[in-house]
Amino acid sequence: MRATLYGGPGDITVGERTDPRIENATDAVVRVTLGCVCGSDLWYYRGDNPHTLGPIGHEFIGVVEQVGADVTTLQAGDLVVAPFTFCDGTCANCAAGWTGNCLNGGSFGNNGVDGGQGEYVRVPFADATLVKVPGNGYSDEIMKSLVTLSDVMCTGHHAAFSAGVKPGDTVAVVGDGAVGLCAVIASKRLGADRIISLSNNPVRQALARECGATDIVTERGDDATKLIMDMTRGTGVDAALECVGTGQSMATAFGIARVGSTVGAVGVPHDSAVPLQTVIFRNIGLRGGIAPARRYIPELLGDVLNGSINPGLVLDYETNLDGVGDAYTAMLERRATKALIRIGA
Amino acid sequence: MRATLYGGPGDITVGERTDPRIENATDAVVRVTLGCVCGSDLWYYRGDNPHTLGPIGHEFIGVVEQVGADVTTLQAGDLVVAPFTFCDGTCANCAAGWTGNCLNGGSFGNNGVDGGQGEYVRVPFADATLVKVPGNGYSDEIMKSLVTLSDVMCTGHHAAFSAGVKPGDTVAVVGDGAVGLCAVIASKRLGADRIISLSNNPVRQALARECGATDIVTERGDDATKLIMDMTRGTGVDAALECVGTGQSMATAFGIARVGSTVGAVGVPHDSAVPLQTVIFRNIGLRGGIAPARRYIPELLGDVLNGSINPGLVLDYETNLDGVGDAYTAMLERRATKALIRIGA
Repeated sequence: MRATLYGGPGDITVGERTDPRIENATDAVVRVTLGCVCGSDLWYYRGDNPHTLGPIGHEFIGVVEQVGADVTTLQAGDLVVAPFTFCDGTCANCAAGWTGNCLNGGSFGNNGVDGGQGEYVRVPFADATLVKVPGNGYSDEIMKSLVTLSDVMCTGHHAAFSAGVKPGDTVAVVGDGAVGLCAVIASKRLGADRIISLSNNPVRQALARECGATDIVTERGDDATKLIMDMTRGTGVDAALECVGTGQSMATAFGIARVGSTVGAVGVPHDSAVPLQTVIFRNIGLRGGIAPARRYIPELLGDVLNGSINPGLVLDYETNLDGVGDAYTAMLERRATKALIRIGA
Repeated sequence: MRATLYGGPGDITVGERTDPRIENATDAVVRVTLGCVCGSDLWYYRGDNPHTLGPIGHEFIGVVEQVGADVTTLQAGDLVVAPFTFCDGTCANCAAGWTGNCLNGGSFGNNGVDGGQGEYVRVPFADATLVKVPGNGYSDEIMKSLVTLSDVMCTGHHAAFSAGVKPGDTVAVVGDGAVGLCAVIASKRLGADRIISLSNNPVRQALARECGATDIVTERGDDATKLIMDMTRGTGVDAALECVGTGQSMATAFGIARVGSTVGAVGVPHDSAVPLQTVIFRNIGLRGGIAPARRYIPELLGDVLNGSINPGLVLDYETNLDGVGDAYTAMLERRATKALIRIGA
């Protein structure tokens, strides 16, 4: 099969890799139809984070090609959404709902596990990992939204859910990347009345509005904090969602969060720190992290299928497997918010 | 009146101070019967934290002596518990239940406000601040428990409540000071099945057992983390309560917290940092801070009066106003867990 391969910083190619086959009775092999490039893929592409060489990509949907003898809920031909991590569904963490922290799990497209930016993927613990999409014949728009359930929409939801967004809330989303945009969608879905998106990029401001943002703040740092405090009559927002992972974005989130609220953080930390004095003296909590995507997909799937959310609109660049290198470059140069890779039919 | 006065690091004396009187129509003047020395008083006594010179002490119960014209719920002769901060009850933070972060409030025994280690205190916003104790003729044991509601028992409860302690949980309390001991009581009250107290002090180990600890861990640092992970079959505890405020105690709390749990932190931070990678990659949250004591006192008061909790047992040293300097020294030298000051009848 053909698959995207990581050869080191700046080195993304498409090459041949042995077709995966059932290795364990709980495996399935999935033929990938749509994959994506994740913002977190850029960290190793830039050389900021280490990553094993080989297949990459952890976001995909596809069609079940083959299942192992012990797989009971899936069969060949099923359309499935894969969460970005596989999980056994039975360990202490999975049992508590923390499927992204499965004790026997791992991430697709890492440590030699097949990646979602390739033609086929062997999926361990297929029953526990994959979510079957009911019905068929969905529009391309729906299919694009389905692939966002692999990671980015679940991660945006995790930010909002972790911060406890509830009906009537004023929410601020720090970060206008695809995760931030999905956090806007998630906040609206959870009933927020006012959603402030921090963005100084006109393309993303328009996307944020389309996702449900009611206000755009173009300032950064202390200026953003001051403005949002003024917008909330000095109280701060009911929920601040940190969707970047830098020191400045974390400081802004804590600076605008109201007393007693919880910052929902999903940005992978880079040179970031928690202002502990603010935590303690303003009673501002912190929750978030690696989204338990497998737990969230079923509830979000229904809203994608009935059209009440449309996270596929964060995919504003698309190509096929031959163009995957360009997709990385487009995201790196911020010409794309998030790139869709059309891999199979 | 006579009141404890702070003259700078190591300088605690009892001196004369003008009797307080009603200054605003919402004030009450309270004759203090019992006060305490708080662990946080030691920070400025040692010179580690700045503090205004003058009256000190923020934990007290007493009898209402006089009320302002606008005070409607209290009258002279009422036995009252004062939370360690006063609050207007109406600002955005108070309205949301964060009375310790009142926008118009402040702390007793700071910035020239009368302290609880003196004979009388002018209490601003008396209706909103003070909690009347129903009935009278309580035992000395009950009275000692009532004064812990001023701060230490509410702060221990805040750690447990912030961490979401629920029936059946395994809880670990990092810190064997009075706050940690109260966090043990609070965890038991919230239904924890197993309560691990980290303590290497035999006196406090015995107190922790009396408060409800089921296990004592005498190790510290990595050894403590390893042992508690073993005790929980590698999963970690359902709730880790950080009741110290040092870097080591924070690291231990995050090290033993299970995936998806929330560290409840109430220690005032000193050279402490949040392990953000653990937050994000293990989905371990952080909540806590200055306890909203005024919010908690009513619910805890009932349990003190019916004898189901007995937080007064953390007061293992007592003296009167003349001995207040000795009380500070005893706590500094760890001869006392927490000192009671008997001030009036």
